[in-house]
Amino acid sequence: MTGNRTIMCYFAAMKEIRYSLGQLYDFTVAVFDAIGCPGSDAHTAAGVLLSADLRGIDSHGIARLSGYVRLQEAGRVNPVPHISKVHETPSTAVIDGDAGLGLVVAPLAMRTAMEKARLAGTGWVSVRNSNHFGIAGYHAMLALEEDMIGIAMTNASALVAPTFSIERMLGTNPIAVAIPAGEQPPFVADMATTTAANGKLELLQRQSKAAPYGWVQDKHGDATTNAHALREGGSLLPLGSDREHGSHKGYALGSIVDIFSAVLSGASYGPWAPPFPAYVPMPENMPGQGLGHFFGAMRIDAFRTAETFKEHMDHWIGRFRQAVPANADQKVLIPGDPERETEALRRVEGIPLVASVIDELRELAARLSLTGHPFSS
Amino acid sequence: MTGNRTIMCYFAAMKEIRYSLGQLYDFTVAVFDAIGCPGSDAHTAAGVLLSADLRGIDSHGIARLSGYVRLQEAGRVNPVPHISKVHETPSTAVIDGDAGLGLVVAPLAMRTAMEKARLAGTGWVSVRNSNHFGIAGYHAMLALEEDMIGIAMTNASALVAPTFSIERMLGTNPIAVAIPAGEQPPFVADMATTTAANGKLELLQRQSKAAPYGWVQDKHGDATTNAHALREGGSLLPLGSDREHGSHKGYALGSIVDIFSAVLSGASYGPWAPPFPAYVPMPENMPGQGLGHFFGAMRIDAFRTAETFKEHMDHWIGRFRQAVPANADQKVLIPGDPERETEALRRVEGIPLVASVIDELRELAARLSLTGHPFSS
Repeated sequence: MTGNRTIMCYFAAMKEIRYSLGQLYDFTVAVFDAIGCPGSDAHTAAGVLLSADLRGIDSHGIARLSGYVRLQEAGRVNPVPHISKVHETPSTAVIDGDAGLGLVVAPLAMRTAMEKARLAGTGWVSVRNSNHFGIAGYHAMLALEEDMIGIAMTNASALVAPTFSIERMLGTNPIAVAIPAGEQPPFVADMATTTAANGKLELLQRQSKAAPYGWVQDKHGDATTNAHALREGGSLLPLGSDREHGSHKGYALGSIVDIFSAVLSGASYGPWAPPFPAYVPMPENMPGQGLGHFFGAMRIDAFRTAETFKEHMDHWIGRFRQAVPANADQKVLIPGDPERETEALRRVEGIPLVASVIDELRELAARLSLTGHPFSS
Repeated sequence: MTGNRTIMCYFAAMKEIRYSLGQLYDFTVAVFDAIGCPGSDAHTAAGVLLSADLRGIDSHGIARLSGYVRLQEAGRVNPVPHISKVHETPSTAVIDGDAGLGLVVAPLAMRTAMEKARLAGTGWVSVRNSNHFGIAGYHAMLALEEDMIGIAMTNASALVAPTFSIERMLGTNPIAVAIPAGEQPPFVADMATTTAANGKLELLQRQSKAAPYGWVQDKHGDATTNAHALREGGSLLPLGSDREHGSHKGYALGSIVDIFSAVLSGASYGPWAPPFPAYVPMPENMPGQGLGHFFGAMRIDAFRTAETFKEHMDHWIGRFRQAVPANADQKVLIPGDPERETEALRRVEGIPLVASVIDELRELAARLSLTGHPFSS
């Protein structure tokens, strides 16, 4: 019996229901509206959040909606922020997010970088006093609309131990770079500076599977396959996994993201970055305000004509697609390929949500008295 | 006897002689002078080259001097380049290196980025038609003199296979980022976007040692510890080593460096990047001119006062130095620590050169009829 029950629970946890983008979008707007976000902000935030679900980064999409609401309820997110530019030069700005949703602050900051780029060739914006901004790739990709290269990064609450350490000092601190092409789809890299993103680890936890060696270490700094090691005092490992395989490079990359996002802007950095879960107490003696982000926009024609550049990008991408594969059943991918393919599929077939996420959204709908939505009872 | 002979050869190969910075500098200037570089260029090139030896990046220092000379002899380096700005905006420029030494072109391009930053807040320069520029960290660190963050990257001849491929498509494409601090020394990251730099592999080859798994793959794409795998059709692996450990991130980082350095400027990219060894034929159908570099300079006070930033950097660095180590005999390092310590030591004790490098330099001195130097016969 015990064995059967375990199997049934396992399948129940894995059961998925598909929803259309429109259904999830309307519900998400209603949620942000219910917690007091002005209408346009609710739409902006919903668009950013759901771009993660569309692109297959399920850990950063609607699965986090309840988390954002709890931050607002805990007074850590200001639903009506006065977002302001506190310093600027022709090609730079510092923006204070006034504790607003990162989902709202970040697109505004990215558009400020693009405005700067229109006049000065490039624009670079460091942001303080913000919150979690969804997927970095969304913001970087805004630049593609105007034939610019877009760059986005953010610090995040500390889960990652530097090389030689057992202390969580850095977040998964992602870097996204979006580069326009012509006939080919754009090049879009969006990566945590850790060996594996935390979302991938959470997936293994839900499935009670082991993690590959090199993703996490236990609280003593020893290699482990325990996907729950983080809960037991362990930490995520920087890209490279260990010193011999270049973890000092992943540690340096995560540090650069932290410094550009938070030290340059006046946000809280390193182990003092504010946590996403509202139940985790805020760190003491925070050296800055909120989370930090960093955005860049480079106009292609500040270097060479967009037409010539795109021809060469098409040539570059075409050549890399033809790189000799190691196995006949594999092909070389261009950064952004898997996410674009997932998005094309999900726009048609809908976005699958697992039972635990559906339950959370139902609870949220009830708590906020939302009716007429797929998660309303 | 065979056993003894092997051991003796091993020690002979490892035998080192120390030279003062001044000795090596004067010799290097004399070599660049002998191949026709104008006086100031010879000094610039020698300074860049020897900064690698000082900082312990022996693979990129005077050990490569003969290689630069052979490139000049093969007509691939122009000793008297007319380096020109071919396009600019307030915060950007494209520079054509006229096939000059990267050791000369790069500092000039970095200083152009700094000039731009003085007026526009930041400066970004993409360079085409250049050659190998030494260590990226040297150029990034130039920005520190003016309280700027410095960024330097370059593409390089293809040795690295993308994830899922066995074809060499990218160079080791390094990224360097130098960030000023106050009381603390600056944060200086300087890293190849591969698991291990090629120089480290060369060291294992000289010592007939095995490479750790994850550094290289053989010509079939299989994991190997053969440090000579590259000579046998294998390839270097991107940072992350394999897909499960994030090699697609290292591949993306190397690609971004290639695109910023070469597609944005009009240099030759991907598998068409010109090779450093003069005996390797130039690729056919090159899509651009020479190697490409990319430089960035961000004025700290384009974001917040340099004084406040440096206080926070000191705080950041101090806190990371105190991160709990995994073992009592280890400590957490800040990027740039090992190189700075090596430099302090070598400025006093001299720079050790191995016998094979000394032999090459003697041969070079004889060929160029240089007298009065430690390598003259």
